Amino acid sequence: MIIDVHGHYTTSPPQLNAFRGQQISGMGRPGRRNPVISDDQIRESLENGQLKLQREWGIDAALFSPTAGAMGHHFGDARISQHWTQVCNDLIHRVAELYPGDFIPVAQLPQSPGVGFENCIAELDRVVNELGFVACNVNPDPTGGAGMTPSLGDRYWYPLYEKLVELDLPAMVHVSASVNPAWHSAGVYYLVGDTAAVFQLLESTVLQDFPTLRLIIPHGGGALPAQVARWRAMQINEGREPFEELIKRLYFDTTLYNQQGIEMLIKAVGVDNTLFSTEMIGAAHVIDPETGDWVDNTRPYVEAIPWLTAEDRHKIFESNALRVYPRLAERLRKAGKQVSGG
Amino acid sequence: MIIDVHGHYTTSPPQLNAFRGQQISGMGRPGRRNPVISDDQIRESLENGQLKLQREWGIDAALFSPTAGAMGHHFGDARISQHWTQVCNDLIHRVAELYPGDFIPVAQLPQSPGVGFENCIAELDRVVNELGFVACNVNPDPTGGAGMTPSLGDRYWYPLYEKLVELDLPAMVHVSASVNPAWHSAGVYYLVGDTAAVFQLLESTVLQDFPTLRLIIPHGGGALPAQVARWRAMQINEGREPFEELIKRLYFDTTLYNQQGIEMLIKAVGVDNTLFSTEMIGAAHVIDPETGDWVDNTRPYVEAIPWLTAEDRHKIFESNALRVYPRLAERLRKAGKQVSGG
Repeated sequence: MIIDVHGHYTTSPPQLNAFRGQQISGMGRPGRRNPVISDDQIRESLENGQLKLQREWGIDAALFSPTAGAMGHHFGDARISQHWTQVCNDLIHRVAELYPGDFIPVAQLPQSPGVGFENCIAELDRVVNELGFVACNVNPDPTGGAGMTPSLGDRYWYPLYEKLVELDLPAMVHVSASVNPAWHSAGVYYLVGDTAAVFQLLESTVLQDFPTLRLIIPHGGGALPAQVARWRAMQINEGREPFEELIKRLYFDTTLYNQQGIEMLIKAVGVDNTLFSTEMIGAAHVIDPETGDWVDNTRPYVEAIPWLTAEDRHKIFESNALRVYPRLAERLRKAGKQVSGG
Repeated sequence: MIIDVHGHYTTSPPQLNAFRGQQISGMGRPGRRNPVISDDQIRESLENGQLKLQREWGIDAALFSPTAGAMGHHFGDARISQHWTQVCNDLIHRVAELYPGDFIPVAQLPQSPGVGFENCIAELDRVVNELGFVACNVNPDPTGGAGMTPSLGDRYWYPLYEKLVELDLPAMVHVSASVNPAWHSAGVYYLVGDTAAVFQLLESTVLQDFPTLRLIIPHGGGALPAQVARWRAMQINEGREPFEELIKRLYFDTTLYNQQGIEMLIKAVGVDNTLFSTEMIGAAHVIDPETGDWVDNTRPYVEAIPWLTAEDRHKIFESNALRVYPRLAERLRKAGKQVSGG
């Protein structure tokens, strides 16, 4: 079985963004009328989008969340963020109800710069306990790169970590769009977010204070595969826990668009900490003129790595995900999918 | 011959930082009395520091600039930046006069957030034409991560690029310290600076508009070795010049602290665009408990790469540097060093 842990609903019907445009332009006194999207419109967006590619590429299921770049936690205040988040999560819930087993729901959170986590905790209770979501995305910088967000190692984040531990819920650390015109969101800022997140966790005590917390760093950890030796040296220099041990408490996805990058990631963090992903129909969705295949079809890159055993591949494609996301196996089984373990 | 293109005077005598402390605390009405440092104090700092390690590690010469993290362009205004820069560059000049052939002078620039490049251009004329400096460092974000600096692709930078082209002077793109407490300067912000710089140049027309401009991206390009396939796909998606061609107009150093990272860099950018460096006595200056050697002794990593030919190694260690830095060969020859070409 092939599980893609990093999918976003980038193909959502235009009514969603139309609603968002109205929400932002009417930010001072926002309406709460939800976008009207039919089941058929959802089906059309997916049958011509992610579901089509899943079938073509041989992917059995995807963890599926709202578009990361559209979370936009920097717009407006906590009210705006809360309503927008509920609209987005409700749409993901509908996707998961229409295609159980194909799309497994993952939530965005109603974060807001400088605001505590009361709304996030309430939304987590709603989407996990009422709607059966299996994970959430945490934005490590809800300012969109405009200001100072406390490090992920700061106590500011501890109420959220406590809730994640209480729910036994994994979280992907994923920024949203950049407000800095010098930083392309998917070309720079996503990688900045990933890179900073890894180092912030290495230099803090979060992973020791929350031994059961499970955080997934997307895009292969940003600079990590290239800069692992720098960070390893800095851990030694500062007398902190060795890099090799700490990095085993984090998880990384294979959203790196060639074999070499994925090889380097696996060598840096280990097979057990690597989760298969495509982030399909995202930044790298283009036909490679050299191969004639989509660049974001990452499965062949993993399959081509000669030194991975069959057991290694099974871990990366399936069993690691079932272990890291404890609610995943049950959702897949309920949908009639054959799950080997977890 | 082994040339290290990325050295900073991180071991400068304490009088320099004492002066800087006084300058910052008296920022409103700064004095201009320079720090008093004797030749013997400079000699001591280097004979126990970079020069000692150069001899131990078999490095013949280093391009040597003021400490990057101490440039601090975000402090005060253009006056403060100008005076501090002159003090730092004058100290580098004294180092280069005391040890010609061992340390080749590279300047910092008197940048200041939101300010034009008049002072930088004047300082370039001074250090290049009067003092014989061979390169400079350009800070792509003089706000220290606090605000919005125009992309390196913005016309804001064009007067500086024009001056670099006029002088035929290469520049290393290197941020200074971070003012964002969530971003460790050497652990995160340096890599953010490198990563953003590469993408900004890929998505702009700078490299087409200035075909003779030579920019060196340090620390192996930050996330580049890991994220090359993402950026390649985005170039295709946007219909821009192919990644493989554009990347050959940039230069990268080997300040990556293991063999694998350097291998991946060379595969991504090519032998001709890779310059040997250590950034010794920097972030990764620690004994590796596994090897018993300094982590920032990067020469063995390059030498261990099995698929590099003798000619490839010669390029990376020497002849690329002589080509990219046109004033370098003459300075080395004047100091009595055997230079093979350039």
